[in-house]
Amino acid sequence: MIHILLIVSTLFTFSAHAAVQDFCVADLKGPDTPAGYTCKPAAKVTVDDFVSTGLRFSGNTSNIIKAAVTPEFAEQFPGVNGLGISIARLDLAVGGVVPMHTHPGASELLLVTQGFITAGFVSSANSVYVKTLQKGDIMVFPQGLLHFQVNAGGVTSVAFASFSSATPGLQILDFALFANNLPSKLVEATTFLDEATVKKLKAVLGGTG
Amino acid sequence: MIHILLIVSTLFTFSAHAAVQDFCVADLKGPDTPAGYTCKPAAKVTVDDFVSTGLRFSGNTSNIIKAAVTPEFAEQFPGVNGLGISIARLDLAVGGVVPMHTHPGASELLLVTQGFITAGFVSSANSVYVKTLQKGDIMVFPQGLLHFQVNAGGVTSVAFASFSSATPGLQILDFALFANNLPSKLVEATTFLDEATVKKLKAVLGGTG
Amino acid sequence: MIHILLIVSTLFTFSAHAAVQDFCVADLKGPDTPAGYTCKPAAKVTVDDFVSTGLRFSGNTSNIIKAAVTPEFAEQFPGVNGLGISIARLDLAVGGVVPMHTHPGASELLLVTQGFITAGFVSSANSVYVKTLQKGDIMVFPQGLLHFQVNAGGVTSVAFASFSSATPGLQILDFALFANNLPSKLVEATTFLDEATVKKLKAVLGGTG
Amino acid sequence: MIHILLIVSTLFTFSAHAAVQDFCVADLKGPDTPAGYTCKPAAKVTVDDFVSTGLRFSGNTSNIIKAAVTPEFAEQFPGVNGLGISIARLDLAVGGVVPMHTHPGASELLLVTQGFITAGFVSSANSVYVKTLQKGDIMVFPQGLLHFQVNAGGVTSVAFASFSSATPGLQILDFALFANNLPSKLVEATTFLDEATVKKLKAVLGGTG
Amino acid sequence: MIHILLIVSTLFTFSAHAAVQDFCVADLKGPDTPAGYTCKPAAKVTVDDFVSTGLRFSGNTSNIIKAAVTPEFAEQFPGVNGLGISIARLDLAVGGVVPMHTHPGASELLLVTQGFITAGFVSSANSVYVKTLQKGDIMVFPQGLLHFQVNAGGVTSVAFASFSSATPGLQILDFALFANNLPSKLVEATTFLDEATVKKLKAVLGGTG
Amino acid sequence: MIHILLIVSTLFTFSAHAAVQDFCVADLKGPDTPAGYTCKPAAKVTVDDFVSTGLRFSGNTSNIIKAAVTPEFAEQFPGVNGLGISIARLDLAVGGVVPMHTHPGASELLLVTQGFITAGFVSSANSVYVKTLQKGDIMVFPQGLLHFQVNAGGVTSVAFASFSSATPGLQILDFALFANNLPSKLVEATTFLDEATVKKLKAVLGGTG
Repeated sequence: MIHILLIVSTLFTFSAHAAVQDFCVADLKGPDTPAGYTCKPAAKVTVDDFVSTGLRFSGNTSNIIKAAVTPEFAEQFPGVNGLGISIARLDLAVGGVVPMHTHPGASELLLVTQGFITAGFVSSANSVYVKTLQKGDIMVFPQGLLHFQVNAGGVTSVAFASFSSATPGLQILDFALFANNLPSKLVEATTFLDEATVKKLKAVLGGTG
Repeated sequence: MIHILLIVSTLFTFSAHAAVQDFCVADLKGPDTPAGYTCKPAAKVTVDDFVSTGLRFSGNTSNIIKAAVTPEFAEQFPGVNGLGISIARLDLAVGGVVPMHTHPGASELLLVTQGFITAGFVSSANSVYVKTLQKGDIMVFPQGLLHFQVNAGGVTSVAFASFSSATPGLQILDFALFANNLPSKLVEATTFLDEATVKKLKAVLGGTG
Repeated sequence: MIHILLIVSTLFTFSAHAAVQDFCVADLKGPDTPAGYTCKPAAKVTVDDFVSTGLRFSGNTSNIIKAAVTPEFAEQFPGVNGLGISIARLDLAVGGVVPMHTHPGASELLLVTQGFITAGFVSSANSVYVKTLQKGDIMVFPQGLLHFQVNAGGVTSVAFASFSSATPGLQILDFALFANNLPSKLVEATTFLDEATVKKLKAVLGGTG
Repeated sequence: MIHILLIVSTLFTFSAHAAVQDFCVADLKGPDTPAGYTCKPAAKVTVDDFVSTGLRFSGNTSNIIKAAVTPEFAEQFPGVNGLGISIARLDLAVGGVVPMHTHPGASELLLVTQGFITAGFVSSANSVYVKTLQKGDIMVFPQGLLHFQVNAGGVTSVAFASFSSATPGLQILDFALFANNLPSKLVEATTFLDEATVKKLKAVLGGTG
Repeated sequence: MIHILLIVSTLFTFSAHAAVQDFCVADLKGPDTPAGYTCKPAAKVTVDDFVSTGLRFSGNTSNIIKAAVTPEFAEQFPGVNGLGISIARLDLAVGGVVPMHTHPGASELLLVTQGFITAGFVSSANSVYVKTLQKGDIMVFPQGLLHFQVNAGGVTSVAFASFSSATPGLQILDFALFANNLPSKLVEATTFLDEATVKKLKAVLGGTG
Repeated sequence: MIHILLIVSTLFTFSAHAAVQDFCVADLKGPDTPAGYTCKPAAKVTVDDFVSTGLRFSGNTSNIIKAAVTPEFAEQFPGVNGLGISIARLDLAVGGVVPMHTHPGASELLLVTQGFITAGFVSSANSVYVKTLQKGDIMVFPQGLLHFQVNAGGVTSVAFASFSSATPGLQILDFALFANNLPSKLVEATTFLDEATVKKLKAVLGGTG
């Protein structure tokens, strides 16, 4: 029995030490690095670092796009830090739209759990891949390509988007072009849009310049 | 107008050529590589390579574990090849269990979409992280660690598991130990299980030796 | 002397065999993989696989954007296959513009070698980073983010863009939106552009639907 | 001679600065990150950071498994931090066993340096790969798969296991199942083991619940 | 209009948070990690972090190699940290030489912008790949292999070398062998050079021992 | 019992399919890729693909360096393909030397199993790290840096070097400089060695030009 305790304590020590990189729950107060946030000390990690209830309820779709996107990336869900995966919930009221956007740092796998959604992406070769999905259908969007989702039915639709990174990033096209101080002249020159269009969308989305 | 056509054809050619690595839909008849399957020629790729309807319906849970796992990995869903993401559907009838298992090549993010599921994993330090999840809850399981899911309510439960690889692999503990020709003596010596237990489980799961 | 020959032949054999993965010149006729093209047999590789003269001369800027982009990615320059680097030449006549675009698979480092260029990118947080560069200046554009370059002087300008991948990809915003068969209704719904604008740009860039 | 000093000082400065990422000796007091520990300042690094004498002597095999595992992972051997490699020494007395286990974060290459060892692993397809090795033989165990080593002769055996990561992790099956507070009911449900077996092994290995 | 503001503020918050890993400008005062420096807080990042004017002018070639190498690696150009790319300027006066060297951590793509340069590398199989390049020509040197550049004409030559890492490293052969305290006996034994040669070069380059 | 068979066949099918990327034994007749060789079909894989007896016996040290290096890289040991690890055996007779060399694609971890070996490496900052090792000692050499091993005692010494890649490559300095057709003028210009030295070593090692 002494032997048993011996092995237990010996191996325990070993495997406890070896465990360092099983996971790296983000310490959001610590510095960020190119590979993700620094790690919360293992002794302070609990199961609640690996669980989130933040996607239980639908997001607020009372806005012009009639849609809500609720992310669970490393910043909202520290347990995924360094694990190469994250998720977001999409709520699309009737007429709802997730506008044209990209994720600079991840591919996306969409799962429809309610209603009907038309989703699509455009490749570097400018080929278009569009499909209307129903409950249970999945679609994958390769990393960095422009894509979108729109409600395709008469009912509220819901989907969950998984990402191949804990920090996929999100660049919404209209916000990148019209919701900041990028000079209108540059927007016009680099998008071929006319001045009136640029000024109108800047006004709507709060852009200046 | 001639100028316009000029630029269109010029840039088109360029970006079509540059597009090569946007995605790499698996050519399942071609050879496999350490980075995934070789790619189907881009000209033959259609939107249906990026969409699957295979998870619309519940799997057959009429079996001893009262559970079904339906994968959409690169082999079932060639569009995810090389994109670092895949998914599987879990159906758990009342009393259903996804037995203790690991994914050697990926972390997993579980999303419960129906019912109640108790899920957990054990770390290299032998710490236990267990939680009962309800609809909308998510939990992450770090790569390579033993984990499990069991139905925690009186109703059929459903979950979707996303993975940080197109080929996460799956090693079910009982199958690895008892459903093959690994000699019983070796199983006993390396698991501390007694001969009767090993023989019984080998009989149930079809193992020999 | 016999000893010397012995060591030479012995070590030669060894290091020749060990050399397999020094480089992997693309065999463009072979299959593509998620990690790049399969390799040309080492015996057939010559120095010309690692050298290109394709960027000696300026591209043709007689087009509406008054600009030319000449890539040397893995497809044009097989020697970079698998090495994580590639390059392109940018020629910008007076008034020339490289329109808003992304590289889904690489960061870019721009080096101006002639004239003046105003370049910029927009982050996921919609922050704008714009600067006018002169000969010898460099600017880096993080992976997957929208960016652009415009001639900022009264002279022809030239720049070279290096990429952190042999296959960075290129998605030109206007081409992705207006130069294919993505239905106008979807373009309008996902970009907030009005029907007239979409139809006009589709006409110019050859889009349908 | 002045010229010489000039070049020496110039190039020295340059290459000293460029050297930053040659290595990253772990600063064990600093924070951990998903890519490994932060680096000890280069000025404080000495040859002893890259050398260890910790595997010179056999580990203590006076325990129930008659075996000892002595790791030199990043935590014990800071010089390997970030370099993708580490090592451990295995001592197996007569009858010694390294029980069924996995390394969640690395493949392993075993080298027998004394005696005879029977080693094996099980694949995701439940195929068994077992072999008895003698001095000088090597065997590789792919990442994350269950494997084991047992003394196969009448003499003490020794082996060294190299890993493809500085932090391979180690999950010993029996410890994960029976040496913690994972509720017995869950162990039974997810392993098909009966209550008596679970309780007995929990008693031996110090588990509760 | 209230709705518009609603969506703007909602989505802004989201995408600002999601932006974390678009880039990671090096905080040179913070700790280094195996994946690069820790990140400067996003709020303090400006366009000047992504731009450098340090390569506008030629380096000082008044030295014995009649050459200058000016790096813009993460330490000199913090904006490239974590982005997998960097650059250096090479100035070669008439007779100038960049001596035999390696970059342990990156492949290199050389672009000649003035004059004539003979460049080459040697593979693990000891094959030699040498070519004389002129303005506009490019050549790629696979990671870790010995290579060199020499002025091949009667005029000052200039080139820019891009690297597939923000910290490629630089090991100049003669400096590694003769400009430090590596004992002469070890240099002789491991290079087959005779004592006189080793002592002479140590004297020139400042080596001891 | 029928149920049992049901689950067995169902899950078996699943996990067999999911197993694709557990390992990728090299098909040496198939094409090479940037990530390693294509895979031998899983059905043809046996335990002997994962085991090698090639390092049981000492290599032939009857040569001028009185040393032998026996590699077990992917080409000699197909089972390591894609697994990020490999190994080599070093035999050093009295006076034996493994000359100055680099591995362009891997870090190395040396384990001395017999005798005494003086080993060392030089960093990009030209710092020297040298140590005399005895049986059981380990030393790590960061990727791509010049390093060497010499017998440091009066007895035959043996060591095993593990690598962080299945294809680490090997560039022996003297062979790269003197055992091929690299023109003597270029060798002299880029190494500062005099003509007599270059010609002598070329003669010894079989170089031309």
